[in-house]
Amino acid sequence: MRWLDHGVAAPAGFRTGAVAAGIKESGLDLAVITSDQPCEYAGVFTRNVVKAAPVIWNMHRLEQKSQIQAVVVNSGNANACTGAAGEACCNETASHLAKSLDVDNNQILLASTGVIGVPLSADRIKVGIDRILLNLGEDKAYADLSSEAIRTTDTYSKQCAVSFEIEDTVITIGGMAKGSGMIHPNMGTMLAFITTDAVISRMLLQKLLKECVDDTYNMISVDGDTSTNDMVTILANGKSGCVPIEEGSQAYRQFRKAFFEVNEYLAKEIAADGEGATKLIEVQVKGLKETLDAKKMVHALISSNLVKTAFYGEDPNWGRVLCAMGYSEAQFDPSKVNLTFRTDKKSVQLMHQGEPQNFDEAEVAELLAEKRIVVAADCNNGDASARGWGCDLSHQYITINGSYRT
Amino acid sequence: MRWLDHGVAAPAGFRTGAVAAGIKESGLDLAVITSDQPCEYAGVFTRNVVKAAPVIWNMHRLEQKSQIQAVVVNSGNANACTGAAGEACCNETASHLAKSLDVDNNQILLASTGVIGVPLSADRIKVGIDRILLNLGEDKAYADLSSEAIRTTDTYSKQCAVSFEIEDTVITIGGMAKGSGMIHPNMGTMLAFITTDAVISRMLLQKLLKECVDDTYNMISVDGDTSTNDMVTILANGKSGCVPIEEGSQAYRQFRKAFFEVNEYLAKEIAADGEGATKLIEVQVKGLKETLDAKKMVHALISSNLVKTAFYGEDPNWGRVLCAMGYSEAQFDPSKVNLTFRTDKKSVQLMHQGEPQNFDEAEVAELLAEKRIVVAADCNNGDASARGWGCDLSHQYITINGSYRT
Repeated sequence: MRWLDHGVAAPAGFRTGAVAAGIKESGLDLAVITSDQPCEYAGVFTRNVVKAAPVIWNMHRLEQKSQIQAVVVNSGNANACTGAAGEACCNETASHLAKSLDVDNNQILLASTGVIGVPLSADRIKVGIDRILLNLGEDKAYADLSSEAIRTTDTYSKQCAVSFEIEDTVITIGGMAKGSGMIHPNMGTMLAFITTDAVISRMLLQKLLKECVDDTYNMISVDGDTSTNDMVTILANGKSGCVPIEEGSQAYRQFRKAFFEVNEYLAKEIAADGEGATKLIEVQVKGLKETLDAKKMVHALISSNLVKTAFYGEDPNWGRVLCAMGYSEAQFDPSKVNLTFRTDKKSVQLMHQGEPQNFDEAEVAELLAEKRIVVAADCNNGDASARGWGCDLSHQYITINGSYRT
Repeated sequence: MRWLDHGVAAPAGFRTGAVAAGIKESGLDLAVITSDQPCEYAGVFTRNVVKAAPVIWNMHRLEQKSQIQAVVVNSGNANACTGAAGEACCNETASHLAKSLDVDNNQILLASTGVIGVPLSADRIKVGIDRILLNLGEDKAYADLSSEAIRTTDTYSKQCAVSFEIEDTVITIGGMAKGSGMIHPNMGTMLAFITTDAVISRMLLQKLLKECVDDTYNMISVDGDTSTNDMVTILANGKSGCVPIEEGSQAYRQFRKAFFEVNEYLAKEIAADGEGATKLIEVQVKGLKETLDAKKMVHALISSNLVKTAFYGEDPNWGRVLCAMGYSEAQFDPSKVNLTFRTDKKSVQLMHQGEPQNFDEAEVAELLAEKRIVVAADCNNGDASARGWGCDLSHQYITINGSYRT
């Protein structure tokens, strides 16, 4: 498997492009991804009862088993809590792009991100789509543009691509994602768009996506708020001409591995670039009886404001980690716990078999100054484990979110 | 019912006192409450699996149906995650105070609040107890001292007392509490100590306390972290000599009302004085099918970092309120929702029957500048309702918690 310096336009037959359509005050805010040929489509969506209009649109396309030809994504406005007007905007946008591409409305996916509760007009989007269609491409520069256009408070764009061979046929998977607030493990939790030229059925794609999301996007948290707009979609256009990927085959195992790597990469980048974040916190929990318990514990740790502010302050207040483990609803015995903070360079044990350990303050201070820190807890009570990723909680988070709308 | 300018020493037969025992670097940090005669005792405790040593001590006293004579509380150290040494400290402290009062060890309650995972030595506490016992009193000044001594990051102390008559006998209820971080609805969620001279059985007291905690302390949140040390205890020494309070009687209804008022007052004060808070946010939710759904919705709203930062920034980003309602797991139809922000002076409707409403930015800005704001949501789908209290999330919260330990 090779990592490519590319994104959603890396797989054969996909093109993309983006423009500044005037939805944001300035900058790129509209992107389109198209495929030469109809794509098998799988998606997972926010579990929030309040779903944005484009989320509902895409869920209907999934129910209809639509084959997809294009995706249009805007930033600057979430088209959520916008009532009947929001739905009308989706219809108008999809219909405009479908007509331009000479396909059916049902073959268009939609995504929006930005402020909630402000009406989104289709007019600027339609003009923007026309401009994008005049300048679509498959080079990295086009993927760069699109991954830029879907940013909101992200400080950098997030994309990646990998390729590998199945029986001498090169298969590519590309992806892009955006964070960086309203991120919390519950289904999609953000926008991610994955493309591939592999030959794979809709049903297998959906199964694989669900499994993958549970171990990647659903294991990150920035602020505990599950958005109205979260979605992860994958489009597979079959253009590589590889042998059909079927469950249990060697090809399936190769595809699965590459697919998980792409999504784990994007999920970790979202956590690392959480609003105001200065550090990526990887939580590794083991020694529990049930995987569900291990995941609950990881969620509690990556979601705790007190744990997050301690890491921001580089304060070795490890008691907050134990506290969060304790209220996670996971079953464990506090008197058996080992707790370690770790980086590439250092490792410091803070608790052993439930007893606090003496540690060198200077050594821990050095460890906590790093940008990527592992919190490892062993409950010594079983074989189940889980991993997840979060970030610290900083003054900058408050600044960003105290004035997001105004 | 009259509100008294007093606290835990207001009911007949209770005395209290506090000193600076050197557990904190400076200031009052140790308080004792005693009763002339043995008290019926009820308590509720944190559901955190990681329980501080004094929480476990008090739970044992509840199981044993001990009658209580005194409580000792320290701030500056939580005596949590302290292993076997933490337990030994509890034994030593209780035994020392019991000997001084000539009562049994089982008649002492213990409480600690402060940093987790740092050993707590009984030596300073024992010297402190000796000094307090030389200067106990029932005047307001003594209650003031004790409510000061249990503070950690609280910016002011929290106490109150009420009295009322049952068949011409005056009954008093007093209380004190401390916040102000690691506050999240799940049982106790902080320290609160209630005293009364009413004549009431242990079982009825426990039942009443549980009901009351569910509607008061369990309906507040500061930061979503459920502490290792949370507890609410009530001591009833019977000294008023009133008719025994029995369930269903007029006396019971009077006592219940006064008891709920005292606890609601303390709970709201904890939320208003949450770490770094600049505003109290009262959430009122109605029109749901089930009370549990209404409570879930209130919890989601008072716990959302994005809602909290929006109020801090006085940004009318009401879409975040809808978003949090949506992920609360409460069942409702977003297209039926009415949403209003309200203060004593103003009321602005933001959503009506699921459609966003035009509002005057200047008017909302004025409303959001107030210190006490009501967020009222009507889901128009049933008769269940709930209330709860939270606070905004500020730069100051990050500052406090980035360097709590160091």
